[in-house]
Amino acid sequence: VNVGDLETPVLTIDLASVERNVTRMQDYCDAHGLALRPHIKTHKSPEIARLQLDAGAVGICCQKLSEAEAMLEAGFGDIFIPYPLVGSRKAGRLAALAQRARFAVAGDAAVAARTLSTALVQAGTSVDYFVDCDTGFGRTGVQSPKEAADLAAYVSKLPGLRLAGLSVYPTTEEAAVWVREARSECARVGVPIETVSGGGTPTAFRTHEIGEIDEVRVGTYVYGDRSCLLAGTHELGDCAARVRTTVVSRPTAERAILDAGSKTLTSDRVPWNEDSGYGVIVEFPDAVITALSEEHGIVDLSRCASRPELGEVVTVIPNHVCTCVNLHDTVVAHRGGQVEAEMAVAARGRVL
Amino acid sequence: VNVGDLETPVLTIDLASVERNVTRMQDYCDAHGLALRPHIKTHKSPEIARLQLDAGAVGICCQKLSEAEAMLEAGFGDIFIPYPLVGSRKAGRLAALAQRARFAVAGDAAVAARTLSTALVQAGTSVDYFVDCDTGFGRTGVQSPKEAADLAAYVSKLPGLRLAGLSVYPTTEEAAVWVREARSECARVGVPIETVSGGGTPTAFRTHEIGEIDEVRVGTYVYGDRSCLLAGTHELGDCAARVRTTVVSRPTAERAILDAGSKTLTSDRVPWNEDSGYGVIVEFPDAVITALSEEHGIVDLSRCASRPELGEVVTVIPNHVCTCVNLHDTVVAHRGGQVEAEMAVAARGRVL
Repeated sequence: VNVGDLETPVLTIDLASVERNVTRMQDYCDAHGLALRPHIKTHKSPEIARLQLDAGAVGICCQKLSEAEAMLEAGFGDIFIPYPLVGSRKAGRLAALAQRARFAVAGDAAVAARTLSTALVQAGTSVDYFVDCDTGFGRTGVQSPKEAADLAAYVSKLPGLRLAGLSVYPTTEEAAVWVREARSECARVGVPIETVSGGGTPTAFRTHEIGEIDEVRVGTYVYGDRSCLLAGTHELGDCAARVRTTVVSRPTAERAILDAGSKTLTSDRVPWNEDSGYGVIVEFPDAVITALSEEHGIVDLSRCASRPELGEVVTVIPNHVCTCVNLHDTVVAHRGGQVEAEMAVAARGRVL
Repeated sequence: VNVGDLETPVLTIDLASVERNVTRMQDYCDAHGLALRPHIKTHKSPEIARLQLDAGAVGICCQKLSEAEAMLEAGFGDIFIPYPLVGSRKAGRLAALAQRARFAVAGDAAVAARTLSTALVQAGTSVDYFVDCDTGFGRTGVQSPKEAADLAAYVSKLPGLRLAGLSVYPTTEEAAVWVREARSECARVGVPIETVSGGGTPTAFRTHEIGEIDEVRVGTYVYGDRSCLLAGTHELGDCAARVRTTVVSRPTAERAILDAGSKTLTSDRVPWNEDSGYGVIVEFPDAVITALSEEHGIVDLSRCASRPELGEVVTVIPNHVCTCVNLHDTVVAHRGGQVEAEMAVAARGRVL
């Protein structure tokens, strides 16, 4: 079966592109002495995680305990959850997982760390702990190198938690300055910073220039998407994930409607390019997907010299592949267009 | 079990609110002699469709053939698919479904109608056909009353298709003018317009004032969401779908992070209020969910007099309930907080 024979809409994954992306990132990390720890939130498929580990990744990242549970079921260990686990229920689940495989977590609050410690001690197990540092994104994380050192010192005394280092996001020049200050603060209070974990595909290939980072957490790189194209980390041929979609209406000369909307493509925009629409149509690069309904993609063809006909199938590179994949129970894995397998998005819907 | 005991994040549905919403819309339609045909794309759950039919709905709408297949499996018939089915594969699937139950479709292209006709005749069955009319949304649909009459005349001669009327979106005063013109154009070419179907929750309760509409297609009304609050069709107590989410980080005095991001809440914005954030936090109405990552909701508390603590559970009314529900394999149905059932979102992921 060729992907051209598939009914639409369908999310297809080009395995040859995936393998190139996996190799490229692993080669980069190897060349610069960086550990690579891919984030499975992007693909949520054990098959792809296997490719990443076989290429040389040191372990995986999961964003939720339930994702980690799914990956553990599929046979994976050495899992880092760079997400704050808060409360005794999450702590209990982490402890149960840590009895079965090596785990690491990140956190930014002493009280949450104490709860984890209690549960881990009770279960007779332990995990690595990274201090989550907000190096400019404005999301989770301690706000200053001083706070990082305070939390590191606190955690270093908690049983069940082994202080492993710092986890930063994003990984930028500012982050490197931040980390250097945190290292001195930590040295001052006598706690060692063994590993610094940095994240994000857009900055990944600059990690060696930025410095201070030992381990690279990246997800999107494996499939690529429009944000990667715009960030310059991927070229068109590196975008492995594509939605094949049919033109189901041509109401005017300048408008086409696709059978792929927000329930197929994702309504995520490219954050730094909000007006750029909802994906690239590979065959009609001058077309703009101006809006999405749940099952409709609304396309402005006014800048296109040639235009797709009713019934024509086109290929869309989604804006954000992680949320796109998360809409699909399965994806179609192919090689050069020849379908190899229907691949389960095994950890889809794992929100807990 | 009380919803307060559930681990987060979790999407909960208050059945009492659902029943009130169902009754209110049905009573409105009954009072004005309108047929109500709820759109199941919002809930994708047979249990909720059953409530809607038991209250007096004439049938249901599905947006995709695969949704219709799921609802047919669950025992429902009389299904309208107000979505263009293009090509012989979709036609063949429709014909197979039409052998088992009464179906209607909408379309805007003669060539697509001919393909449907061929498949339906081959299967020895037929469906009702509505001419899809673009009354101002700029999505699918014929562009003028004249085009509507031309397509109606064409379809009226095709075996396997029974011309049933017009399907319009949106349902506005302009749509009523449009429909009146289309009626005269159709009369001029000798084709009858039996039924006019109009859609959309925001305008639903004004259908009788707008006029010209016989059947109301609405989905969102059943659960309500932030767009309904802003449109004024629903009050807070009418919003049945709420995500319970935990504050997993309080990195600064003015910032909270929730364990609900774009994979839990939906990244849809309210179209006419793009800067209003990603949902309402019921307990902290002055808080603004300014951004979502996949598993993080980033909240600005600067306008809040009281502020949630780390570990506190809050309740979010999502911007767009249809895409929110579509992220979840199950929802928790409760009554006044007492959990009654875990309800499958049976038609979730049905994109084909």
